[in-house]
Amino acid sequence: MNNQSLPQPDADPAADALVIFTPSGKRGRVPTGTSVLDAARLLDVDLDSVCGGRGICSKCQVTPSFGEFSKHGVHARENALSEWNAVEARYHEKRGLAQGRRLGCQACILGDMVIDVPATSQVHKQVVRKAASQRAVTMDPATRLVLIDVAEPDMHEPSGDYERLATALDEQWQIGPVTAPLSVLRKLQPALRRGKWQVTVAVNIADTPARVIDIWPGYHEGPLWGLAIDLGSTTIAAHLCDLTTGQVATSAGVMNPQIRFGEDLMSRVSYAMMNADGAQAMTAAVLDALNTLATEICAEAEVAPRDVVEAVFVCNPVMHHLLLGIDPVELGQAPFALATSGAVTLSATELGLTAVNPAAQTYLLPCIAGHVGADAAAVALSEAPDKSDELVLIVDVGTNAEILLGNRDRVLACSSPTGPAFEGAQISSGQRAAPGAIERVEIDPVTKEPRFRVIGCELWSDDPGFAEATAATGITGICGSGIIEAVAEMRMAGLLDASGLIGGPEQTGTPRSIAEGRTYSYVLQDDRPAGGSLIAVTQGDIRAIQLAKSALYAGARLLMDEMGVDTVDRVTLAGAFGAHISPKHAMVLGMIPDAPLDKVTSAGNAAGTGARMALCSRAARAEIEQTVSKITKVETAIEPRFQEHFVAANAIPHATAPFAHLRSVVPLPQPGFNAGGGGQPGTRRRRRRG
Amino acid sequence: MNNQSLPQPDADPAADALVIFTPSGKRGRVPTGTSVLDAARLLDVDLDSVCGGRGICSKCQVTPSFGEFSKHGVHARENALSEWNAVEARYHEKRGLAQGRRLGCQACILGDMVIDVPATSQVHKQVVRKAASQRAVTMDPATRLVLIDVAEPDMHEPSGDYERLATALDEQWQIGPVTAPLSVLRKLQPALRRGKWQVTVAVNIADTPARVIDIWPGYHEGPLWGLAIDLGSTTIAAHLCDLTTGQVATSAGVMNPQIRFGEDLMSRVSYAMMNADGAQAMTAAVLDALNTLATEICAEAEVAPRDVVEAVFVCNPVMHHLLLGIDPVELGQAPFALATSGAVTLSATELGLTAVNPAAQTYLLPCIAGHVGADAAAVALSEAPDKSDELVLIVDVGTNAEILLGNRDRVLACSSPTGPAFEGAQISSGQRAAPGAIERVEIDPVTKEPRFRVIGCELWSDDPGFAEATAATGITGICGSGIIEAVAEMRMAGLLDASGLIGGPEQTGTPRSIAEGRTYSYVLQDDRPAGGSLIAVTQGDIRAIQLAKSALYAGARLLMDEMGVDTVDRVTLAGAFGAHISPKHAMVLGMIPDAPLDKVTSAGNAAGTGARMALCSRAARAEIEQTVSKITKVETAIEPRFQEHFVAANAIPHATAPFAHLRSVVPLPQPGFNAGGGGQPGTRRRRRRG
Repeated sequence: MNNQSLPQPDADPAADALVIFTPSGKRGRVPTGTSVLDAARLLDVDLDSVCGGRGICSKCQVTPSFGEFSKHGVHARENALSEWNAVEARYHEKRGLAQGRRLGCQACILGDMVIDVPATSQVHKQVVRKAASQRAVTMDPATRLVLIDVAEPDMHEPSGDYERLATALDEQWQIGPVTAPLSVLRKLQPALRRGKWQVTVAVNIADTPARVIDIWPGYHEGPLWGLAIDLGSTTIAAHLCDLTTGQVATSAGVMNPQIRFGEDLMSRVSYAMMNADGAQAMTAAVLDALNTLATEICAEAEVAPRDVVEAVFVCNPVMHHLLLGIDPVELGQAPFALATSGAVTLSATELGLTAVNPAAQTYLLPCIAGHVGADAAAVALSEAPDKSDELVLIVDVGTNAEILLGNRDRVLACSSPTGPAFEGAQISSGQRAAPGAIERVEIDPVTKEPRFRVIGCELWSDDPGFAEATAATGITGICGSGIIEAVAEMRMAGLLDASGLIGGPEQTGTPRSIAEGRTYSYVLQDDRPAGGSLIAVTQGDIRAIQLAKSALYAGARLLMDEMGVDTVDRVTLAGAFGAHISPKHAMVLGMIPDAPLDKVTSAGNAAGTGARMALCSRAARAEIEQTVSKITKVETAIEPRFQEHFVAANAIPHATAPFAHLRSVVPLPQPGFNAGGGGQPGTRRRRRRG
Repeated sequence: MNNQSLPQPDADPAADALVIFTPSGKRGRVPTGTSVLDAARLLDVDLDSVCGGRGICSKCQVTPSFGEFSKHGVHARENALSEWNAVEARYHEKRGLAQGRRLGCQACILGDMVIDVPATSQVHKQVVRKAASQRAVTMDPATRLVLIDVAEPDMHEPSGDYERLATALDEQWQIGPVTAPLSVLRKLQPALRRGKWQVTVAVNIADTPARVIDIWPGYHEGPLWGLAIDLGSTTIAAHLCDLTTGQVATSAGVMNPQIRFGEDLMSRVSYAMMNADGAQAMTAAVLDALNTLATEICAEAEVAPRDVVEAVFVCNPVMHHLLLGIDPVELGQAPFALATSGAVTLSATELGLTAVNPAAQTYLLPCIAGHVGADAAAVALSEAPDKSDELVLIVDVGTNAEILLGNRDRVLACSSPTGPAFEGAQISSGQRAAPGAIERVEIDPVTKEPRFRVIGCELWSDDPGFAEATAATGITGICGSGIIEAVAEMRMAGLLDASGLIGGPEQTGTPRSIAEGRTYSYVLQDDRPAGGSLIAVTQGDIRAIQLAKSALYAGARLLMDEMGVDTVDRVTLAGAFGAHISPKHAMVLGMIPDAPLDKVTSAGNAAGTGARMALCSRAARAEIEQTVSKITKVETAIEPRFQEHFVAANAIPHATAPFAHLRSVVPLPQPGFNAGGGGQPGTRRRRRRG
């Protein structure tokens, strides 16, 4: 606070004024002549400021209201706020103030007042989430910008520039004690001199002592940025977030280059076990990809890498260890011990993330257990089952599914090794979700004829103009949501029996059922139309999907056993892929337990959302650390009932569970195609994790 | 504390015994059956343990005493201590216990006792310094070894190995909270499994939270090591210290490779100013030298680099900044602002010291001012002027001299740019102190004939056998202490007048005075004897010494002015070189103010000693940080009287100061050789710093 904020000489210091801040409703008396910013501080009102009352940053803009406010019992006269002073007038001339706005650090309270603090002037603004069911985030980032005036050096009272900077932070912002890494000490002296002893510093106030992250000469506009990174086994997704508003400027993704060491997690763990320096090679590969991704995302958003001062990671335990350079070997064998389960905070430099500010703080959410990682913790943060009155089942569908079940009283968690089938891998015509991939399927129960949509085209395949519209991409395969719909539609159309066998052309009455060896395939797309190739669902595809969905269901069912329930109130499908799954088809497949269809919703990329929440809010970090410590972990790998549930879940939708809600809305014909074809998937050796 | 330390079942828990520990004198009653180690902890007696009472480390050895102790009012019966148990017997069998010694963690108190704790069993043992005038150091290192048993992972209650390690540290050693760098997390899981869940960790307990530095499977004997490094402009000296005993295992030195960027400090600052990346190149060079030196010193002492867990640096401000990678440009111009003046603590990895444990803590002592560095702080720590009743002047002689003046009431500090003449540079026959260099000189006042000694030979040059004894090295030049003695002896022998002019052969009556242009030189060693070359003291040499000694004296005098005194009680010559200076000759030269000769002593390498103290003792670090904040800094560069004092000090010993103590013990003839020869050194442009 500088002397601009002190009571004005023409004000009567004995008098005071009643001031009411909206929307907080905080009120109190302040001496007349007090600046609005100082009044806000006195009354603990959330009013932003980076320049500390110097009339530079304009973050403290407020909207004064005048007239009669019977609700507040106040009459605000027109002269209750001081006229524009020279600082405010200059700011308006140079940068413009919106109609009705004033600079809170310059405008002084001269009489009873009602003052509105717009959301943009709040540090702890609420960021409203799009879906109504989801929680708002209150901005509370760990790192902030502040402008300070540092005392000049004095030969007669020698002290370091850094020590005087620390004093200024304490005196002008009550931030202290502070430390600074060498990267800051190295920039300090030129910055102070170029800024004529006025500098903006980025300070991480989450830790004690606080930490100076960077320094700029004079006033640095900002904003500061953070990266929320969802580090998946297959893809890495990064979101560049404005740490003031919480808004995402750019998102981007790349393939995880560790795929070359092994497609699924267990093959990466094996690679680490079998190769000296294998884990190090995988760590180097992922860091390289992260740095490339961070560089690209900053370039695209035109953000300077040094302005990126925070990064939050969510990932499964194997990726967590490989990111930190910890050999994941223990995660490959009972008792699946994590090297560290708590949240990990370290500098970008120590982590090896070189494409952001070297002093940036990186934060990894805590892991729940050896198979239930920081990604599941992020889902728990985003979906907050611990705050739900209803019993909610949350399924994060991926190569390895994370499953949470709970309500206010208790939350359980497990993971289940679904394998990559849901992502289109291990499927004969499977492919990743990309233009040209079949993503929606319908099969006429009478004619047994299919129609479908492909990514990149809004038309169905039987709509006029479809061939032209898809000529550029072609029809290249089936993605994860497409295969789920195809299998479920085949089941509803009577092309597939409950055991998972595809019927032959005689049994189903359609020539789209074609023989392949001793089993049958169902042709979705023959190779005659231009731009297409033969795309069929084979018996092997069905078996792969059965393995995956049985694992998912068995995990969920195990949690329900542990909770002592046979039904759940709500089901949330999460994961980047979860957003694209049709709840009805998922339930026909028996991926999830039976529930009213309108209670099955998608939360989109909940792990990514959780990462962004942790990025924007220190409180969210504290909350999830607390929540994770209370979650009960269930280890599917050692639970004998998991195998029982898995076998029973092979049937489509299920061998024994009634699925009454489902049967009330969709037909589930009961053909039987068993003629010796098709293996028993439950007896095949399952892959552990993926 | 494990159950080995709990009261023994055969002891009467209601009874208690009086136990007196020597040498501390601490006494108190403990329940009979209490182990000696637990009794020590209860009574706050300093008794070491690394294994925490498991009978492994033997650090808790004690010597029980029996019989009548009237002084303590105790009669210790023979059965007042338990018999050897199996653990103690096994230890004795395998590794041997000295006569009368017991393991404190195994031996249990059964009756009134007197127990002696030998120095080797104390954590905070006092390390007695050799010179009686110097202070003892109490061992109190920041990093210690502790043995812990870590709980095994449990699939049903999943937690990270690190989290269970942290719990063990807290429960078994009351150390917590703790953090750990990635380097430790990466070693954690294999260490725990190889050690069967028993590991030794090195923990730095100086910070909050404490920091795990390293981990070893099972019991790691240690000791831990630290490096005390005196980083001079010209040479780098390192001492490898045992952090348990404080003893130096090995010392080694190398030339500072920055010399190639500039011999003196100001030329290095210039290099940084004139060359982009100049400072970075100098930082890289010094780190490279430090890593080579650390590697060599560890190899020589057969110490594993990972066992080196601390490093303390002392250096002048320019070296301080160049070590940290901070451009020293501001130190080259008023107001000589330091980037940071406080003590700097950072990890070896952040500093770039790669040849020690990556998590090792490095500590730079605080700087006093822009010209008075951490080396002066280290001298203040070692010599403790702030604890002296007498007014003591401490002069650390080097290329740049640090000067301290003070007593209990007040301490002043300044630096003075003496240049490298005292180190043998800028002297015609000058050389570094090495075998063959003349280090002692005497000149007969009657015959004007010299005799001398060279480094590496105990004989004087006129002793029989000198030529043979020095045949191997030759007589190669004059080192710093040699030139001081030579000039002082020339002055006492009447070969040199008070203004610093060398007399001609007619004026001095010796053919050793030879003409060189318009001035004369004095020949110490002609080139006739085998193995020698012509070595003379030239008029230019005298001028160089005059410049250096005037700067030194003027600095001291300025502090005396500031203190308001004309005399000091004691003078301490410090610096690696200071130890070799003859007090009498220094005073004849007028390097230091007049004082009783028996009050002029050498403290040896006081800066290096201060570094070792800070290495061994957290308390010493806190003390010097406190002391430095109280020292009054005097900036010689802007003080007009410095120039006056400098000019007056050109005369040998001085133009105006009486030097009464000196004149009472040595003759100072008063010839006058001014015949137009020789420049006026006071009017020549002085080099700033060096």
